[in-house]
Amino acid sequence: MPDEPWRDPARSVDERVADLVDRMTLREKLGQLYGVWLGQSTSEEQVAPFQHELVDDDLDWPELIKNGLGQLTRPFGTAPIEPAAGAERVARLQEEVMAAGRFGIPAVVHEECLSGLMAHGATIYPTALAWGAAWHPALVEEMAATVGATMREIGVHQGLAPVLDVTRDVRWGRTEESIGEDPHLVAAIGTAYVRGMRSAGIMPTLKHFVGYSASRGARNFAPVAAGPREVADVLLPPFLAALKAGAESVMHSYADVDGVPPVADHALLTGLLREHWGFEGTVVSDYFGVTFIEKQHHLAADAGGAAALALAAGVDVELPQVRCFGTPLLDAVLAGDVPESLVDLAVTRVLRQKCVLGMLDPGWRPARPSVPSTVDLDPPEGRALARKVAEESVVLLANDGVLPLRDGVKVALVGRQADTDAAMLGCYTFPRHIPTAPEGVAIPTLRSVLPHDVYVPDGEDAVAAARDADVCVVALGDESGLFGRGTSGEGTDASDLRVPGHELLEAVLGTGTPVVLVLLTGRPYALGSYADRCAAIVQAFFPGEEGGPAMAGVLTGAVQPSGRLPVSVPADPFASPSPYLGAPLARVNGSSSVDPTPAFPFGHGLSYTSFEWTDVTSDGLTAAVTVTNTGARDGAEVVQLYLHDPVAQVVQPVQRLLGFAKVWLAPGESRRVEFAVPPEATAFTGLAGKRIVEPGDVELWLAASSADVRQVLPARVEGPVREISPGEECDTRVTVS
Amino acid sequence: MPDEPWRDPARSVDERVADLVDRMTLREKLGQLYGVWLGQSTSEEQVAPFQHELVDDDLDWPELIKNGLGQLTRPFGTAPIEPAAGAERVARLQEEVMAAGRFGIPAVVHEECLSGLMAHGATIYPTALAWGAAWHPALVEEMAATVGATMREIGVHQGLAPVLDVTRDVRWGRTEESIGEDPHLVAAIGTAYVRGMRSAGIMPTLKHFVGYSASRGARNFAPVAAGPREVADVLLPPFLAALKAGAESVMHSYADVDGVPPVADHALLTGLLREHWGFEGTVVSDYFGVTFIEKQHHLAADAGGAAALALAAGVDVELPQVRCFGTPLLDAVLAGDVPESLVDLAVTRVLRQKCVLGMLDPGWRPARPSVPSTVDLDPPEGRALARKVAEESVVLLANDGVLPLRDGVKVALVGRQADTDAAMLGCYTFPRHIPTAPEGVAIPTLRSVLPHDVYVPDGEDAVAAARDADVCVVALGDESGLFGRGTSGEGTDASDLRVPGHELLEAVLGTGTPVVLVLLTGRPYALGSYADRCAAIVQAFFPGEEGGPAMAGVLTGAVQPSGRLPVSVPADPFASPSPYLGAPLARVNGSSSVDPTPAFPFGHGLSYTSFEWTDVTSDGLTAAVTVTNTGARDGAEVVQLYLHDPVAQVVQPVQRLLGFAKVWLAPGESRRVEFAVPPEATAFTGLAGKRIVEPGDVELWLAASSADVRQVLPARVEGPVREISPGEECDTRVTVS
Repeated sequence: MPDEPWRDPARSVDERVADLVDRMTLREKLGQLYGVWLGQSTSEEQVAPFQHELVDDDLDWPELIKNGLGQLTRPFGTAPIEPAAGAERVARLQEEVMAAGRFGIPAVVHEECLSGLMAHGATIYPTALAWGAAWHPALVEEMAATVGATMREIGVHQGLAPVLDVTRDVRWGRTEESIGEDPHLVAAIGTAYVRGMRSAGIMPTLKHFVGYSASRGARNFAPVAAGPREVADVLLPPFLAALKAGAESVMHSYADVDGVPPVADHALLTGLLREHWGFEGTVVSDYFGVTFIEKQHHLAADAGGAAALALAAGVDVELPQVRCFGTPLLDAVLAGDVPESLVDLAVTRVLRQKCVLGMLDPGWRPARPSVPSTVDLDPPEGRALARKVAEESVVLLANDGVLPLRDGVKVALVGRQADTDAAMLGCYTFPRHIPTAPEGVAIPTLRSVLPHDVYVPDGEDAVAAARDADVCVVALGDESGLFGRGTSGEGTDASDLRVPGHELLEAVLGTGTPVVLVLLTGRPYALGSYADRCAAIVQAFFPGEEGGPAMAGVLTGAVQPSGRLPVSVPADPFASPSPYLGAPLARVNGSSSVDPTPAFPFGHGLSYTSFEWTDVTSDGLTAAVTVTNTGARDGAEVVQLYLHDPVAQVVQPVQRLLGFAKVWLAPGESRRVEFAVPPEATAFTGLAGKRIVEPGDVELWLAASSADVRQVLPARVEGPVREISPGEECDTRVTVS
Repeated sequence: MPDEPWRDPARSVDERVADLVDRMTLREKLGQLYGVWLGQSTSEEQVAPFQHELVDDDLDWPELIKNGLGQLTRPFGTAPIEPAAGAERVARLQEEVMAAGRFGIPAVVHEECLSGLMAHGATIYPTALAWGAAWHPALVEEMAATVGATMREIGVHQGLAPVLDVTRDVRWGRTEESIGEDPHLVAAIGTAYVRGMRSAGIMPTLKHFVGYSASRGARNFAPVAAGPREVADVLLPPFLAALKAGAESVMHSYADVDGVPPVADHALLTGLLREHWGFEGTVVSDYFGVTFIEKQHHLAADAGGAAALALAAGVDVELPQVRCFGTPLLDAVLAGDVPESLVDLAVTRVLRQKCVLGMLDPGWRPARPSVPSTVDLDPPEGRALARKVAEESVVLLANDGVLPLRDGVKVALVGRQADTDAAMLGCYTFPRHIPTAPEGVAIPTLRSVLPHDVYVPDGEDAVAAARDADVCVVALGDESGLFGRGTSGEGTDASDLRVPGHELLEAVLGTGTPVVLVLLTGRPYALGSYADRCAAIVQAFFPGEEGGPAMAGVLTGAVQPSGRLPVSVPADPFASPSPYLGAPLARVNGSSSVDPTPAFPFGHGLSYTSFEWTDVTSDGLTAAVTVTNTGARDGAEVVQLYLHDPVAQVVQPVQRLLGFAKVWLAPGESRRVEFAVPPEATAFTGLAGKRIVEPGDVELWLAASSADVRQVLPARVEGPVREISPGEECDTRVTVS
């Protein structure tokens, strides 16, 4: 058969795939449209309550693969396994898949990789909200490339990250997995991640398309109350940006948006994504998402109906295993309820990806580490990078001068978060301390690395220790866990934003000893009551396995704090959601007794040095400033550019981010930051529902945070009102010299 | 001039108005498009902070009226005035308006009438949320007719009620002004109000069109995050129903919906309201709403631009006074920026209403009470009706048998709400106790009418009193006030739903004495912590001037409790919003740690007697049941019919109300309740965005509350999928025999 065109690497992808699809039976085509999750069972912690009835413990593997297999789901995502042995197991499974099917096509192997590869013993990087806090896309790109290289080494092809959901209500448990509340920031960091993954040969998966973060009451899976303009101008832009960066796969969101679940939304998955945006990759289902059409959304009476709706909408691959796209879809096609042409569309997209990955080439073999015993999922370079991201993500919110801690001060360290690695880890990680995990380097806690005189986890002894000290460091925060285990994470939503452990904080504040509040959390908590009473507040968002040293470094001054808030920190624990990105009436408006003003605004973060901003210039849609480090320590300034559109045809946010530059400066050093804003970056969805550029006067706000505007620069968008195409959407060009 | 066609009552309205408009100058036309608010100033409590700069203290009345005047704003709405003197003043103003203008056209006089006429000394009826709790449309119709008759007597033509905003998040301060969280209930009660007003010759004004109640975070004026389907299926239906009942005027909503403020929304005010629904009446601006286009929404650069947008959208009358529709609009028309034809459209609608009201007839004279000294804004029949509505609106939420209070038990009454008339009154009222108010009968507080042994407002003495008593009645709740004055009311939003005064409740519960919790509030508060610990809980929503006796009557058993919840009572003070009317995933969904299940569900309410439901029958889309009072007291059962649509083309709520009947029964008495559901009552907005009837199996749930379903009746909607016109929208027919 070597003369069959589909096997010929010299031919075009389209030609090869068309030939292959022509040769396939319906059953063989369907075999490419689902994954299988081996070894998962209802007893696993990873399974949500709603998934119990959905997980199939009785898979007949040989029977399943005889028609081929689209994907292998999370082979490293269940029981701990030594990495080389895991890679070998994946390779063997691939060989079985290739041997069983008539065409010998291997499966795409996918894994979670939100905080690094989600495998036992792999480097645990900071969670995505910390990437947002670092305001450093190049660093995130390097991280993703490093993670991707490890994944590739052990036979993984696709990673289920990044999460591009723009934060809308931080009570949502998955806030820790998202990058922030501004679409430009999310796009900038998210595309960096995409570039990094792709540079390593791993396909990133953009999730969750679209709306998930705007669920009512911030409850996971709850219906999304968002209009089409909010979807288009806030929630969609990071996805378009990431697709332009080359992302090959998109995962639909679970929650219905105004009555239509994305998994069954043809206008979204086909009309917008493929026809308008020109996306040619695959759409994969969020786990059990196709089944949701029947069981949760009630748009279909059975699994075949669910499969038909999902396929017609534009879903290509059912994950994590087959429930709808197997026999039920087969029956629906055979009954004439679903045209086989829809199956052909989906299988063509799947095979095109496999072809590009070389999986249809005659010589393809599963990855096998060349020297198995050397496979290291937590290598020194990964650990160093995890440290770097963690360091740059720590945000110094307030400081009366107590930080960095001076030599000789007597430090009391209190709070349970100082003494558990759980304080460092987001929900898409395997904790190192579980008994069955492979041995790895223990994750250093704050207690283990911060010099201190006494540590007390909680209670009256902690208060006494604080009273006896010069400074009390109070470490509070979340423990992340799935579906209600812990205080943050997927399915672990909050109904209010009181700081976990605030009782201890109040007690320690009562001693009069200066308090350094250290927050290790998955979401911002309300600090209105504490902002003025703490000597300093330092915020980290699940900073990963190197989070302890990173935080300790900031506290001692060994590390210069450089993070900025990717989400506003509210003042009031109950008055959600954040007014950032809101219209004027979303802020204090003279007519609501509830004040939504945050305690610390989006983009805020302090330094141990000082900066001077000089020589501001502006010409048309440009802005430039020279930033000088006028202090005695190294430090980073994050120069931020916001758009303010004073009059528009639809209501505009007071401000939104157009660009930013994180500039590290030695004492006395100066650099010039220049922004060139293309008119298309001012686009919004006009009255008629199309993205337009509207001419007129605008303002560029050169700022050190969303609330610290250093200079208002009048500018003007020229030309007629015009609709723009997805191809024209573009970002501000930023240069630092 | 008596031969001018416009003066001739024998001619058609259209002919007369067209003739008149032809004769008017542009200035005279504009004169009809605004109102004036005499005597209002920035020092008034009625003015919100945002309005301070908007109120014009320097009106030049003679100059203003020389081109005529569209409306007189709230002549009874500022300083207290003896009613007959007030009516005389209005009549004199009308005579001045008629004398000043070339055509002698009087102004439409409008007043607020949410809790009865909002004039000092007038009967204060229960707030609208209490109308919803009474589940008795005929009673609300009678109330509105009585209120309307008073208004007409003193020269008022238009009333700024009812509020048809369907409750979406009860933290919103205006929850007390709305009727409930189910569109059918709001429509049923709202149309009853409309019929009553119209029967008295008063034009009701439907507000707020549309979306106001769904503002983000329930903050007043904040942008509305709702998609078009939510707007169409939840928020709009009560308006269409009320227009079909003959309502002549609509007031736009302040808040933008997905970026478009209704005041500037042509698709809403013209496309939907007039072209699709066929509305021929006037759209009036909410106070200062046209100015909002410039000052708050920033869709226009100046007042002329704001006027142009509002007029083009379909706003006919600027209220409460002229800021945009006067000189700025004049200049815009003269400059050619606004076609005069748009002015003609608006003035034609205004004059058509005046013509129908007889105001263009030669003999028209302002209303003057025939015997001035007998004008009584709080007559015995009004007071009796206020009592009746109050009685029927009290909801007995829980009762372990302690109620009704038995003779001889020692009752401690505690809580400040027991001793202030403020506990009874919504925000659209003038308190009786203000020193300058005319003398009226004092409003009886609970303390003044409930037999008790000791009363202590608060503190440790209250706890001691409770400890010494057999039963402790704890009266807690809101005081209503505008813009942050108090705990409920317009502009007085809540950030959480903890019961005001819960500290006292906890202290009293700690004594072990059985507690009867009496709630006099403007919104439901979270009762999850108290439902099982109180011996009884009785909920009233600002029950008006007769609320004290009504509540006391329920407590003693002199009044049989018959109210049902028009809004769910949450369990958790922080987990908003209510899951009622939500999709399956809006409820407990196995994937969010936040449980939104209410403490007491929509439609819930207990009685002092018992009922048996027998002989349930169903045939097609009908349901019938015989209800028998099997207890020893009179009582009312509220038979509720819900729709459950198990499979649909878009996500459906788990249930929604289709019809209800409140049936009063003497002991041993039986009545039969029959529901006939037209297929159109099952309509929803389909995938294509049109209201459709979709065939298929449905369920009719015969229920005593939304969570107390007595019988599930399978039913079927026959025929093809079909789009329905606004004229076909109709409700369930309910008969009681």
